[in-house]
Parts: sequence; C-alpha cells; structure tokens
Amino acid sequence: MAKQKAFALGIDLGGTKTLAAVVDITTGEIVASARKRTRAERGQDFVAQHTSEIATAALTSAKLPPDTSIVAVGVGAAGQIDRKAGAILDAPNLGVKNMPLGDILSKQFGKPVGVGNDVEVAALGEFLYGSGQGYTNFVCIFVGTGIGAGIVQNGRMYTGFTGTAGEVGHMIIDAGGRICGCGCRGCLEAYASRTAITKAIMAEIHHGRSSILTNEAELQLQQGETIIRSGLLANAINQGDALTIEIVTEAADYLGYGLGSVMNFYNPECIILGGGVIEAIDLLFERAVHRARITALSSPASKTKILRAKLGDFSGVVGAACLGAEAAGYQFPIQ
Amino acid sequence: MAKQKAFALGIDLGGTKTLAAVVDITTGEIVASARKRTRAERGQDFVAQHTSEIATAALTSAKLPPDTSIVAVGVGAAGQIDRKAGAILDAPNLGVKNMPLGDILSKQFGKPVGVGNDVEVAALGEFLYGSGQGYTNFVCIFVGTGIGAGIVQNGRMYTGFTGTAGEVGHMIIDAGGRICGCGCRGCLEAYASRTAITKAIMAEIHHGRSSILTNEAELQLQQGETIIRSGLLANAINQGDALTIEIVTEAADYLGYGLGSVMNFYNPECIILGGGVIEAIDLLFERAVHRARITALSSPASKTKILRAKLGDFSGVVGAACLGAEAAGYQFPIQ
Repeated sequence: MAKQKAFALGIDLGGTKTLAAVVDITTGEIVASARKRTRAERGQDFVAQHTSEIATAALTSAKLPPDTSIVAVGVGAAGQIDRKAGAILDAPNLGVKNMPLGDILSKQFGKPVGVGNDVEVAALGEFLYGSGQGYTNFVCIFVGTGIGAGIVQNGRMYTGFTGTAGEVGHMIIDAGGRICGCGCRGCLEAYASRTAITKAIMAEIHHGRSSILTNEAELQLQQGETIIRSGLLANAINQGDALTIEIVTEAADYLGYGLGSVMNFYNPECIILGGGVIEAIDLLFERAVHRARITALSSPASKTKILRAKLGDFSGVVGAACLGAEAAGYQFPIQ
Repeated sequence: MAKQKAFALGIDLGGTKTLAAVVDITTGEIVASARKRTRAERGQDFVAQHTSEIATAALTSAKLPPDTSIVAVGVGAAGQIDRKAGAILDAPNLGVKNMPLGDILSKQFGKPVGVGNDVEVAALGEFLYGSGQGYTNFVCIFVGTGIGAGIVQNGRMYTGFTGTAGEVGHMIIDAGGRICGCGCRGCLEAYASRTAITKAIMAEIHHGRSSILTNEAELQLQQGETIIRSGLLANAINQGDALTIEIVTEAADYLGYGLGSVMNFYNPECIILGGGVIEAIDLLFERAVHRARITALSSPASKTKILRAKLGDFSGVVGAACLGAEAAGYQFPIQ
C-alpha cells in the first residue's frame, strides 16, 4: 500500500534569492517550486509581501487536488530568529528587523508556521531527506555568501545556549589576518566563502593578472551581482584558468583548516558540505577534504565521513517544510 | 543527619607528575594525597609500578578506619584511552602503549576501576565538584604542556564519534603559522600552551632580550624541566618584566581567539579554564577572556560565562575518583 502523502510549504529566504516549494514531507520530494531575487534593498514591507507572493506562486503551481491542502508552512531565513515567536529578529542581508513573519504567513495560509535560521533549516533538510539520513551526530556546513553550519546532536538540531551555535564561518583560522564582515580579523568566512573567493579574484584582476573570467566577472558585478556565479568559476577551472584555480585552491585549503578544527574539537561522525560553490566545483570540495584529513588528528582524520549535501538548492525548502510540519505536530521517524 | 561518606581512589597520570588521592566522592573532598614525578623515560613497566606505589601511598596516608574501604579506583591518563577495556592505547608523554592499567589496578586493589583521558576526567571533576556545578552544557579547557578540553553535553561527558572530542589545542588559529607537536602548523597549542610560552620566552632570551627570568629559567631547563614553572612566570609579571608580560599577553590573545572560536561554533553556556598557568597568572586569564569577548559574535560574547576551574591541581584526581565510582555503579546526582 502506498504511504499516505502529506504536503507542506517550505520557504528559503536568503539574501540573494527567495525559494519556495511545496514538499511531500513523507518523502522529501519537491512537488513544485518558485523562486525570485529577494531584493532586500526595497525594504522590509516589500520583503514580507514578496515572500508571500513567491509562496503563493509555488502553492498554485503545485496544483494539489481540491480535497488536499498543505499541513503547515515553514521558513528558513538568513538571520537571527526568535523560534518561539516565529519572528526574524535581525537579518541585515534581508534588510529586516523584528519581523513577525510567522504571524504574517499564518494569517495568509491559515496553517501552523515554523520559522528558523536558514542554515539550521537546510541542515534539517539534509538530516531528514539528504546526506544526513542514517546519521544522528553530524555537522552540516554550507558555503555561500557566508559560511554557516547546522549541528545535529543525538538526532536533534542543536542550537546552543543563545541559539547561535554553528557559526563556523566565524572561527578564527588566521589570527590577525583578513578583515571579516563581523569586524574581526581572520575568520574562516573571510577566506573561503563565495564572497571571499570573488574578492580575491577581482583584486588580482584589478592588479593586472589575466584570467578567462575578466570580462564576464566584471559584467556580472556591474549588473549588481555581489559574487561571481559558481558556474562561471567552475567553467574557468575546467578551462585551466590559472588565477581561478589558484584562488579556489587557497579557499579550499582554508575551508579544510576549518573542517579539521571542527573534527578535532567536536569529533562528529560526519560532516556534510553544501552550497552552490561546493556543488559546482569539484576542486573546492576535494581539496578541502584533503586538507581537513591532513589537519585533523589521526582518529578523526581517518574515520570522520565528509560528504556532499544531497538536496542541492532544495536543502532549505525541504528543511523549512519539515520544520513547519513539526510545528504542526508531525513527528519524523529518525533512522 | 550527616550524609554517609564514601571513598574512592583517584589517580591523575600526567606526563610531568603523577598525583593520587583518596576522595570522599559524596563531597569531592580530598582525604589524603601523594605525588611524584612520572619519569616516563624509565619505560612502561616502571610507570605501571610507580603508579601503583603512588596510589598505595595516598591510600596509606588517608588512614581510613578499619571497617571502611575505598569503593573504586579511577584514573585519568594523558593519552588515548580504550574506556571499555580500561586500557591506555597510546600515551607518548607517558612512554606507554597498550597498557591494561585497569586490570593492573583492579588486581592490586580488588575494586572496580575506571580509566579515562586526563582532560576528560578533570572536566568531570569540575563538573561534579568544581566550577561546573549547576551547568549541564559547558566546555572545560585546561592549559598545560598542551591544551585540551572536556565537553559536558546535557549533563554527560561528550567524547565524540572516535572518543577524541575536545582537542581544542589542535584547532587551527593561525593557518601556516608555528609548527605544532602534532605536525600541523598554526594549532592553538603552539601559541598558548605552557610549552609555547616557554619556547617564546627562551627564544627571545637567546636572542639577547633581557629578562628577570634569564638565570632562573635557564637553570630550571638545565635541571630537566621542560617548561618554566607558573610561579616563576607569575613572579616575573608581578615584577613588571617586559618580556614575560609581552609573551604571556600574546599567548592570552591566541587563547582568546580559540575561546571565541569555540563560543561561535559550539555556543556553550559556560567555559571553564583550568591548569597551573591559568591559576597562577591573572593576566593570562583576564586577557584571554577579554579577547574571547571581542572575538565572539554578540550574543555568545555577552552571555557565555567564562570561569576559572575551582579544584586547581585536584580536578584530575577528584574526577578520576568519581569515574571509578561510576564504574562501581555509583550514580552522582546532577544539579
């Protein structure tokens, strides 16, 4: 007999794009999705309205049968979250402060809403339906504009004493080194994020280094992108572009130092690496794993599994849908 | 009515010294203790024999009443431990490999024996009867020859997937920097351990810097000490010795970066700092805390408690006695 399906709406609200999807929460499958640029610069009211619209678009295109409705809505947002209140406390990349997004979406859809941090929620997605299936103690690290991690401890999301655990991007790996967005020097994020890779490549180009990327990267950045697209980086590496290979290798080494630090301190069973650049660029993943295994002490070095995230762009929406379902009382069986 | 006392023998087997004590496991009080240099250079059989003798000396000097005996023996040893087998797998600083110390002590004393890693066991001591009382999620960091940590998670010791969690001394804080004993470059231990402080001071002295320490430190090192004693460092700082102040401040900054990294990634409720140098040198503790609060993100920076260990030299033996008691079936009430 086929398992009874159940659907929830998941929203991944990031600084660059907003992605919404109707997810079958019994399988993690995407029924339909919609995505748009977030446009944080247009202000908080716009972001709220825009999020509602993208969610509605996903729901409409899912064409659920007339007697079927979603059981819940879930959101992963790039910022500090008050989980109990379902509110975004502070999200500089979204241009949002103290937004009761849970209430807004609850009024709109008439369903229970769960709100979490984007990285934590993406880790939940990988835990329930991605590479984390079968593991109960692991760290899921996402490399994007910044670098963040979700920690699964004994089969539950671990958010720490003040709710901010997993800020792996702000571990110091090069004390006194590059300045980071947080104001400190030497954070991992300042070396291995997509932002850091972009800055390092553009700095070299502006100093006269030649690269296949020169024209296209300039064009992308002039068009308002803040980071070079993963596909463009992957393409340059495949064509043997020396500058891109050099900078990505350097970023991968730093990422590997960060992974090694996590393995030595926290000794998880498994580390899952996700995010667009990890997916697109084999060199980044492979070199980071190599460096991590050299850096870690012998027993974690040889035994910790390091995997790629499986759900790709959809880790966030799948996790968000599941977070919503949990808020509606749904209990996921843990393998 | 006075609580029924119960006694266990705790042994702290470190690279420099071996300390044994009879502990009242209902209060954490030390009844009697004995200590000697470990003398790892004399080989494995000597270390086993010597450990037995020091333990016997502590037990003899405790003068327990004729109708009273210890309930168990516990050991914290500076190395990799097979907890189930009660064996030391590999302990380079003790000159020991595959030693069934649990069996040896069990035959000698006729009691259940628990064997753990020295840092983990010292953290257990602080948890049950030291600064960790009242906390169920914290990290206990000991600065000594190396730097290690014990992690208490939901009121239990967390040892990680391969049993090596807490190796905070091998988090990379200065990628490509100073070479560490583990073979990597840039580990925290290479900057903030007592060994690192000693090396940095002696290097400056050998390059002609003047210091109050010059004669005494040289003498200590010639007499076979591998690290400058904490008291000597504290004394030099109190007398305003510029070199010692400079090197200890630098070490404290690096320690603070490590603490900040732990706060950002793991977000514990509390960090407890222990070890002889932390106890002896206010500058080291205070400056490290200052640097950690600057380094951490705002919410852990303002809310994580950072305390000094309370049991001093006895964290290890108290924890070891409690570990032994647990092996004998004793259950400690968690506050």
